[in-house]
Amino acid sequence: MASSHSAADASVAPAATLVRPGQPLRLADIDPAPSVQHKKKLKKRTHELHKQLSDYQEKLYAEHRRSLLLVFQAIDTGGKDGTIRVLLTGVNPAGVEVAAFKRPSEEELNHDFLWRIHQRTPGRGHIGVFNRSHYEDVLVTRVHGQIEPYVWQQRYQDINNFEQLLTRNGTRVLKFFLHISKDEQARRLQARLDNPKKRWKFEPGDLKERQLWDSYQVAFQEALTATSTPDAPWYVVPANDKKLRDLLIAEIVVAALAQMNPQAPSADFDVAAQVVE
Amino acid sequence: MASSHSAADASVAPAATLVRPGQPLRLADIDPAPSVQHKKKLKKRTHELHKQLSDYQEKLYAEHRRSLLLVFQAIDTGGKDGTIRVLLTGVNPAGVEVAAFKRPSEEELNHDFLWRIHQRTPGRGHIGVFNRSHYEDVLVTRVHGQIEPYVWQQRYQDINNFEQLLTRNGTRVLKFFLHISKDEQARRLQARLDNPKKRWKFEPGDLKERQLWDSYQVAFQEALTATSTPDAPWYVVPANDKKLRDLLIAEIVVAALAQMNPQAPSADFDVAAQVVE
Repeated sequence: MASSHSAADASVAPAATLVRPGQPLRLADIDPAPSVQHKKKLKKRTHELHKQLSDYQEKLYAEHRRSLLLVFQAIDTGGKDGTIRVLLTGVNPAGVEVAAFKRPSEEELNHDFLWRIHQRTPGRGHIGVFNRSHYEDVLVTRVHGQIEPYVWQQRYQDINNFEQLLTRNGTRVLKFFLHISKDEQARRLQARLDNPKKRWKFEPGDLKERQLWDSYQVAFQEALTATSTPDAPWYVVPANDKKLRDLLIAEIVVAALAQMNPQAPSADFDVAAQVVE
Repeated sequence: MASSHSAADASVAPAATLVRPGQPLRLADIDPAPSVQHKKKLKKRTHELHKQLSDYQEKLYAEHRRSLLLVFQAIDTGGKDGTIRVLLTGVNPAGVEVAAFKRPSEEELNHDFLWRIHQRTPGRGHIGVFNRSHYEDVLVTRVHGQIEPYVWQQRYQDINNFEQLLTRNGTRVLKFFLHISKDEQARRLQARLDNPKKRWKFEPGDLKERQLWDSYQVAFQEALTATSTPDAPWYVVPANDKKLRDLLIAEIVVAALAQMNPQAPSADFDVAAQVVE
């Protein structure tokens, strides 16, 4: 079973769910819209965390030794774009690399599924953000019957090996599944249709994908179980409520950075002897 | 122990040595200059094999489904450049991608050691050739004491995982260690000094590296043992004699392609119905 984990002040908000390596996960058992007691505190707490994130990013950059990779996956309308915008607005973009993985190009399809992903991994000192990721290749392709079970099983292993390689090289990997309900998806799709400003995000194909909702849930929960490792854990984040979602993600990211504890290098020269004239 | 393997006509030439996965290898036990009985036949046989290689490359390209990766490693002056030139001259360059891995750039050093390698893996239908490779990172760095034993052990595992990923995606991986004697290296270094046309290949640092000969031999034989797998085998090729070396490599490459047996796709239209006016 998955178990709760959060650095949150328990009085403010419910927690995200850390997926335990190899232990079955049932997304249906996780409430995408837990009740929040002190709604007003959410935004203030999130704001504080974002300031801490900005400070940590600067230290990570100055240290130039390790990196952080944040992977975001969700069902359509799950809120990946909004999550990333809120989390990283206010962080120096020079230290952040966001990669959005859309339909693979012809050249990308000519290589293994991790080829395009590996290219976009963050360099030392950077925070990398994946909007969709290598996980698409065990989700979309599976749900659409494009790959056999042995292929996605092999890919789970390839993914774990790949993330182990990154971890060994000093990259902390955190993965977030934004968990919304089917009703919430309906509301968001309708809003995209109704609101001319949001309409560019709607594709008629989204409605066909919605019909595959149950298959996607199964594919997600199996993929998360198979690829949540101590070094590269998956978190299921209740995401119907955007403010709660943003708080929970900020908490986990800041907690990981606090644990990494990046340090700007100390001066390798005699500071007092430097005279600026 | 390593065992002999070759598709060669036994009457023409001795064989290359296939490194058996996980079984100790002693390079000192392998003759870098075995005697050849029918020297005159070598070149003719090699020439025939190169024609076959060219035919297979065209089929591999037309099939556009799988790829072949040839990795070349050797001690300095071992003959990597010459081997690649001889093997591939006569093959359509449109289907071949040669990558020479020199000292890593700053950006490459900011990522894991497989980052730059993965980018240069061959796409479907292509033959990829690595002149030096990811193996440098368990050889040079080790011999110069830049990495701890646990690091190169982890890298062996990372390399095996990486090559497994490529194999699963339809890339046949063949790896060649060009095995020369220390005396032969002395002759080749001296020739580079003596011959103005070859002098650009000489660096004073080469003499320092030569002093580390024994450490390199140990690092090579351990790396080859740890990373020779059924899907991505290492071959130790006696390489004092360039003509023998070229024959043995051509034999192994052509045998692998024969086994892959690439097929140009058959027409998906009615050929007879097509009238060119």
